[in-house]
Amino acid sequence: MTLHIKNVWLYDQGQVDIQIDAGKIKAIAPNLPEIDGAESFDGNGMAAVSGLVNGHTHAAMSLFRGFGDDMQLMEWLQTRIWPAEAKLTEEDVYWGSRMACMEMIRSGTVAFEDMYWHFHGMAKAVEDSGLRAGVGAVMIDIAGEKQGQECRDQAVQYLEESGRYSDRVKFTLTPHAIYTVSAKSLSWSAEFSDKHNLPVHIHLSETAFEVSECIKQNGVRPAVYLDQQGLLTPRTILAHGVYLDDDELELIAKRGSTIVSNPVSNMKLAVGGVFPYQKAAELGIPIGLGSDGAASNNSLDMFQEVKTFSLIQKHANNDPTVLPSAKAWQVVTGVDAPLIGQGSGVLAAGENADILLLNRDEPEICPEHDFVSNLVYSATGHVVDTVIVAGKILMKNRVIDQELEIRQEATARAKSLCKV
Amino acid sequence: MTLHIKNVWLYDQGQVDIQIDAGKIKAIAPNLPEIDGAESFDGNGMAAVSGLVNGHTHAAMSLFRGFGDDMQLMEWLQTRIWPAEAKLTEEDVYWGSRMACMEMIRSGTVAFEDMYWHFHGMAKAVEDSGLRAGVGAVMIDIAGEKQGQECRDQAVQYLEESGRYSDRVKFTLTPHAIYTVSAKSLSWSAEFSDKHNLPVHIHLSETAFEVSECIKQNGVRPAVYLDQQGLLTPRTILAHGVYLDDDELELIAKRGSTIVSNPVSNMKLAVGGVFPYQKAAELGIPIGLGSDGAASNNSLDMFQEVKTFSLIQKHANNDPTVLPSAKAWQVVTGVDAPLIGQGSGVLAAGENADILLLNRDEPEICPEHDFVSNLVYSATGHVVDTVIVAGKILMKNRVIDQELEIRQEATARAKSLCKV
Repeated sequence: MTLHIKNVWLYDQGQVDIQIDAGKIKAIAPNLPEIDGAESFDGNGMAAVSGLVNGHTHAAMSLFRGFGDDMQLMEWLQTRIWPAEAKLTEEDVYWGSRMACMEMIRSGTVAFEDMYWHFHGMAKAVEDSGLRAGVGAVMIDIAGEKQGQECRDQAVQYLEESGRYSDRVKFTLTPHAIYTVSAKSLSWSAEFSDKHNLPVHIHLSETAFEVSECIKQNGVRPAVYLDQQGLLTPRTILAHGVYLDDDELELIAKRGSTIVSNPVSNMKLAVGGVFPYQKAAELGIPIGLGSDGAASNNSLDMFQEVKTFSLIQKHANNDPTVLPSAKAWQVVTGVDAPLIGQGSGVLAAGENADILLLNRDEPEICPEHDFVSNLVYSATGHVVDTVIVAGKILMKNRVIDQELEIRQEATARAKSLCKV
Repeated sequence: MTLHIKNVWLYDQGQVDIQIDAGKIKAIAPNLPEIDGAESFDGNGMAAVSGLVNGHTHAAMSLFRGFGDDMQLMEWLQTRIWPAEAKLTEEDVYWGSRMACMEMIRSGTVAFEDMYWHFHGMAKAVEDSGLRAGVGAVMIDIAGEKQGQECRDQAVQYLEESGRYSDRVKFTLTPHAIYTVSAKSLSWSAEFSDKHNLPVHIHLSETAFEVSECIKQNGVRPAVYLDQQGLLTPRTILAHGVYLDDDELELIAKRGSTIVSNPVSNMKLAVGGVFPYQKAAELGIPIGLGSDGAASNNSLDMFQEVKTFSLIQKHANNDPTVLPSAKAWQVVTGVDAPLIGQGSGVLAAGENADILLLNRDEPEICPEHDFVSNLVYSATGHVVDTVIVAGKILMKNRVIDQELEIRQEATARAKSLCKV
């Protein structure tokens, strides 16, 4: 499909036309000639920007939004989340993920990294929604080697079956964490990732307890232990990284792994620390931003996430100049962490056509002294009018296909799963 | 005007009708009979909740949104804000405040406490917007007694002139802070407030520097010094309160003053501390929430503010159970601090008709396991469809009168004021 967006505003280029062909941006320039057969629409009053990237979430957990907030972590997991998750079917995960994808589209996210149960439920939801995502079936083998073997067999099977989806669905290995996955399965993931060039997405150093337990059991801190299993590679996405020390950050920098910070979730669950962004950025570590699941955020709006990210870093460092808006915007558009965005973050000819059109008339982004500051510090996802991913319009004038059906299905399933 | 909202949902009562007459709620019950001549509309699909209260802002500073973020405080004030403010006219303040009121209406705020220059610019903007506000001309007399006398004369004059506005505009004394207002003007404010039963709205204990300077100059901490001037009373609104210690909190509790926390502004300006909410709440101090001005937030959306409030309190206290959503919702609707909301926070017969209708279909507030949690942790101001203040509809289907004119006027003035 060929698209021609006329007369749209880019904050660094002014009024231009954007031509899109075969999922890519073909040209950006003022007054481009019309292409025969192209779908053409007027972008007047709109600003075009890159889509946002959510580097760590559990999409289907939107089913559990608000189901047990303000509780101690273990009480919440044991009395709410785990009993509900035990009942989950692939269909539940499909509809929960569809609802999450709808919320993400409505708030300008074009690509995300997911980790949850029922691989095909997630993958099909991503496929149908039109978004891009790294999708993996979570691997947990605390029950022993039998469970470990099942997890590994499953990963092999899902990699093969993932061929049925488009390129937007990227199969990813998702071992849950160092404290829930055996050394054997971690090493196996490293080898399997190397052999098939697969990304690996894992929680790391989210709580102080994780660190002290790791030291107690393995004699080393979490990043060192993960490296011993061969899992710190340029293909690795580390979610959280709150309690990484300087030595661990240096090791991660050396290995080229990506860290995804989840500031809202970390604050809501009161993990106590703050991701050492400044040190990580100094070392050149690729850094992304994630919402975590809607059960611990409870929003998937990356506009709100990037604001909180900048605020908590300024607060923690006692310095208002830390993480200025232009830098924060780079992080949330995935520019600094190519592994998580599937090539997003740049509006230029030849790049993926993953584009947001924003309504410049929303009062919260007026006046335009600094457009990027307005996006980082004042906008919410509701300034997004139109979302284009891989050249396809997923939302226009804030309308998404199947919206009512998705909401009704997901809501009904959520209600039936979540009985206290 | 008489209004009849049919078939709207209250999270604690289910489907009801709401009748509004002469600015007050007349009745709330299922299937109320129609009143002759009433404007009637269907609230199906909507949830009715109390309007939100913004306990501390500088509305017209919306003109300066994004004009110098991520800078050290003094550099920002000296190179950006003060030069721009020096050029401000009453008309600028009017249009800047109108834009702020528009943003507040669009995000569900029904009442706010303002502090800025050009009293009539602010007051007329509040009057025309339909909102409620405490409005005062900021008092600063660092230049000496001549300036002090002018400020005091001005307050006397503005109190008299405030009679030209409706009851929604509440004249308030607004001495800026203990470090910018002389002891003489502070004591005068105390007496004048007492004589005319006027609220007093002042910044207090925002930075560690303010505290150490106060101790150096006066031998006591800020709240004690303010009390020595007679200014800690049940009519006093203290904005920030970040560095209040236990003794100061006990004194404030004894005096019955209100504290308004501004978490986003405090984090963005990196003041370093966090308002001691838990201790203040334990002592029964009336607590409200404020956005501060759009130049240091940069949003006026109280839905975002209340989320950050809960997050930073959980983070600072290392405890996810702190400030649960139901309590946070009470704070942001002004229930806990009657001084700032002009009687808002309760939907019941006889109360002010300050009501929001929220769109229950927004995906970020689905499913409805816990409606209030959804509002606090996931909603933004964009879930607000309709705003009613004092029985008058200020926004319906997200449309506000004069929206284009306000945005254009304010934007043009902002551009001309803010030249670096």
